[in-house]
Amino acid sequence: MASFTFRRQLTVGWGQCDPAGIVFNSRLFEIFDTGTWQLFEAALGVKPHELANAFGISGIPLVDVRANFLRPIKFGDVVDMASRVSEFRRSSFDVEHRLSVGGELAVEGNETRVWVSRSKDDPEKIGGTAIPDDVIAKFESA
Amino acid sequence: MASFTFRRQLTVGWGQCDPAGIVFNSRLFEIFDTGTWQLFEAALGVKPHELANAFGISGIPLVDVRANFLRPIKFGDVVDMASRVSEFRRSSFDVEHRLSVGGELAVEGNETRVWVSRSKDDPEKIGGTAIPDDVIAKFESA
Amino acid sequence: MASFTFRRQLTVGWGQCDPAGIVFNSRLFEIFDTGTWQLFEAALGVKPHELANAFGISGIPLVDVRANFLRPIKFGDVVDMASRVSEFRRSSFDVEHRLSVGGELAVEGNETRVWVSRSKDDPEKIGGTAIPDDVIAKFESA
Amino acid sequence: MASFTFRRQLTVGWGQCDPAGIVFNSRLFEIFDTGTWQLFEAALGVKPHELANAFGISGIPLVDVRANFLRPIKFGDVVDMASRVSEFRRSSFDVEHRLSVGGELAVEGNETRVWVSRSKDDPEKIGGTAIPDDVIAKFESA
Repeated sequence: MASFTFRRQLTVGWGQCDPAGIVFNSRLFEIFDTGTWQLFEAALGVKPHELANAFGISGIPLVDVRANFLRPIKFGDVVDMASRVSEFRRSSFDVEHRLSVGGELAVEGNETRVWVSRSKDDPEKIGGTAIPDDVIAKFESA
Repeated sequence: MASFTFRRQLTVGWGQCDPAGIVFNSRLFEIFDTGTWQLFEAALGVKPHELANAFGISGIPLVDVRANFLRPIKFGDVVDMASRVSEFRRSSFDVEHRLSVGGELAVEGNETRVWVSRSKDDPEKIGGTAIPDDVIAKFESA
Repeated sequence: MASFTFRRQLTVGWGQCDPAGIVFNSRLFEIFDTGTWQLFEAALGVKPHELANAFGISGIPLVDVRANFLRPIKFGDVVDMASRVSEFRRSSFDVEHRLSVGGELAVEGNETRVWVSRSKDDPEKIGGTAIPDDVIAKFESA
Repeated sequence: MASFTFRRQLTVGWGQCDPAGIVFNSRLFEIFDTGTWQLFEAALGVKPHELANAFGISGIPLVDVRANFLRPIKFGDVVDMASRVSEFRRSSFDVEHRLSVGGELAVEGNETRVWVSRSKDDPEKIGGTAIPDDVIAKFESA
């Protein structure tokens, strides 16, 4: 079963680029982050700032992230971005982001995030908790 | 005569906010910068990365910028932004950005930029040059 | 009586610069912000993340900020920065930042911030409160 | 033979942190980037903005980067960072960054970069070129 994919288009701005005229690498991780929030909003129908309350969690913190830079993305480039959950596990999941320019894959990003809540015994402690089945179901598309 | 106003809507992302949950001030200057590029694209029909070549200039560098923070803008807020040139002078101009949330003005920004080209005598030197009349005319709207 | 001045030196990094090879304007507001926190730490002997608790305040939010760009600051430039409170008022104050490269003033920044605490009657509300005299005294130097 | 390790200490600023009060992930990639430039400066005695000219290259672009977040790094945390080249290959190399707080490893980063120059036949094309032996030798320490 295919995973729900969120697509958006963005244009690279002056302030995102470095002296070589290409997107500075850290900016891509902001773009990945926004892509994940928007993917969740599109799949679950919950706005990013309401996600934690809606599901009784503390958040979906990043524990691992990787990016491959295949082609430079330049000032003014129009980027087609596709974001999807590539795997759900019990309390963690992977998000894959693919950024293309003119039909050519330019950057691949892979995030691993955890579905985190506060401990009932000790509210100072947070930890991974089971992702609800109905959350996962909403990311499955025919 | 009224000045052409570019309007866009943006939603505040997690990574733009500080530990108080509000947009970190430096992020607003990125938002102003993008607003100016988009205003020029909308008024002149020239993409940001083609602006310099299209008009034979080096760029439109910022020489002065000011922001007033009237109300905090928070994670998830939907911001209505209006950008317009408030004054054209011979070789410099002012851009005014107004950001509102729920109809209430939250942030005002004012940029002063210069229309800059390379000296014909010494290409190492750049300086302000006269803004073409037809550029200015395109920012005037009935 | 002269105001206590905090001085630091910083070197401009690749990721702070735009395609023109100069510091992107929003980055300077981060540099001002850090300068203010470090000025307060140097004057008061309190670390930035302990400032709110140490003085029973919510923070020192920015309400107005302005920058003048006199000369471009480039990748690799060594910047001498001097930060000082230029004026204390009852519940607000101004911080002036001066950034020089090779002895030439390149950027001037001026922040206005408020000494803010929660209302005793309604902890949801925050507002300006009187800056303690002994705080102000620590910024005065012979 | 051990690889030369560059160590620096940094304190996490307000503007680097997100609404959870911890360093926003993209900021760590800026910190890695600065760490690599400083490592090269320390090993080779060449300032970052002079590196390309000093070695007749276009730069050392990033092609792959990964980060593991083991513990959150918070506003005010004092971070000990150690950066070293973990492997040199013919025209590419890996840099490892380890960030610790209070002696506990908090973040690991791994960058892969390429030693890139312009083609002699077609200056529009750039590509990996052999890293000089004397560059590599300077990263080896007894």
